Amino acid sequence: MSEGRDARPIGVFDSGLGGLTVLRALHERLPGEDLIYFGDTARVPYGTKGERTVQAFARQDAGFLLAKDVKLVVVACNTASAFALEHLTEVSAVPVIGVIEPGVEAALRLGRGDRGNRVGVVGTSGTIRSGRYQEGLARGLEGADGVPPDCIMAVECPLFVPLVEEGLLEHALTRLAIKEYLTDLRSTGVETLILGCTHYPLLKPEIASFMGSDTVLVDSAETLARAAENILRENGLLRHDPAGDPTRGKLSYYLSDIPWKFAEVGARFLGRPITGVRTVSLAEMEAAGQALG
Amino acid sequence: MSEGRDARPIGVFDSGLGGLTVLRALHERLPGEDLIYFGDTARVPYGTKGERTVQAFARQDAGFLLAKDVKLVVVACNTASAFALEHLTEVSAVPVIGVIEPGVEAALRLGRGDRGNRVGVVGTSGTIRSGRYQEGLARGLEGADGVPPDCIMAVECPLFVPLVEEGLLEHALTRLAIKEYLTDLRSTGVETLILGCTHYPLLKPEIASFMGSDTVLVDSAETLARAAENILRENGLLRHDPAGDPTRGKLSYYLSDIPWKFAEVGARFLGRPITGVRTVSLAEMEAAGQALG
Repeated sequence: MSEGRDARPIGVFDSGLGGLTVLRALHERLPGEDLIYFGDTARVPYGTKGERTVQAFARQDAGFLLAKDVKLVVVACNTASAFALEHLTEVSAVPVIGVIEPGVEAALRLGRGDRGNRVGVVGTSGTIRSGRYQEGLARGLEGADGVPPDCIMAVECPLFVPLVEEGLLEHALTRLAIKEYLTDLRSTGVETLILGCTHYPLLKPEIASFMGSDTVLVDSAETLARAAENILRENGLLRHDPAGDPTRGKLSYYLSDIPWKFAEVGARFLGRPITGVRTVSLAEMEAAGQALG
Repeated sequence: MSEGRDARPIGVFDSGLGGLTVLRALHERLPGEDLIYFGDTARVPYGTKGERTVQAFARQDAGFLLAKDVKLVVVACNTASAFALEHLTEVSAVPVIGVIEPGVEAALRLGRGDRGNRVGVVGTSGTIRSGRYQEGLARGLEGADGVPPDCIMAVECPLFVPLVEEGLLEHALTRLAIKEYLTDLRSTGVETLILGCTHYPLLKPEIASFMGSDTVLVDSAETLARAAENILRENGLLRHDPAGDPTRGKLSYYLSDIPWKFAEVGARFLGRPITGVRTVSLAEMEAAGQALG
């Protein structure tokens, strides 16, 4: 296979349907690439569950995608990125990319040079308690100083996921939950707020309105799509074919369960109806994890 | 083994920790019985997920308990009762009891003889969409007329579970959610309201306050404990031992995951701290389901 013409698909997995916001961003940025989505809807959510459980699930999810001969595994779930990225990188023969590092990088680039920059991050209990965002922000990057630990505010927002899944995007309940979770954060005057969960981009308008125009929201989906493009380019894995249709990328969907509100919720995340979904049984997932060795 | 001295434990399973409200009621009613609890915390919730997935999970849950030589399987999860009770009854060598039938019976007994009785039921999306409560109420019982279908009001309350799991039992968010879900129900003047989810008893004070004193709340936990005692007595399975300590029943806990907020949330459901919890791996669960044949 010649460099730059790698037609293998990109694999994307999430605990459920939230990662469709990442799939959408990837498809917009790389319209020529085939994308395979796996959502572990049978076992969603991951964000309330313990580290070992999330690792076991993520192994199966990645194993399922690797068996489909993907050229890149995108961990579109913040909780899985927090707890399983290192392990998956070790066992995978192709690159694996998570959502946390791109989010940290985007937040640091925005605050570059400003020593007083305060950064907030909101996420599930698992993501926040893992401390991964906090560590990354404190460490800094080449060309971007780390954020002093007392300028990093991390807040668990466990009700945001069920609110989004119920479609209550502009509802009084959602506004009240935002107020509950973010009032302290707003009073500290954060300049940058990382949306550390793939469900949260759907709450962007309400969160932005509550935080005010002085706070920039960093959306994992957009920053990850950019990072995925970079890693494909660096590894010569892009699907460049001057003679082909640049927008021919196919999207395939696999789920471990078809939830009751699938049609409604899925379309909300993806921005359009989802068709041709295939289901994957628990036994297949178990086998996929074992095959990873 | 002589009738009435069966020392085998009673097995109780739920999608997560909500079934601890049922365990508590069973322990209060049958303090001499050993109880084994299995909570599928790795895959909770069940209420948003499809019928086949819930059936597959429930098979594994029951298989795990049956391998512990229980004398009765209590399905303490309404969604699993709705979708898997018939199947579990077929494959189990010991009696299996769910939460729906006792709830229906209690509601019908309360409304006995009053043809104009309106009955409401609140539950997860799965439970309500299964139609099991509605069917049972319409069918009636010996000595209790069925409720005319237009006098049965069933409402999905999907946010109640995450609100309870977050411990927001008397919170403004919970009061707003109750208002959202139950305003129409209240305006119809229901005399009886079935709390069709093992999480909901923790919201009883707030729901009762919203519905007013003319509505009687039926709590699955209490009605199920009574039904379990009856089935044990009818089958000669009670642990009667006049010489023994009548309150010696031991409680054992198995979970498929230790969630981040386990200590806090678990104690809330059980009414006291939970100690000596053992975890069960996904592979063990898979094997338990297969062993059921």
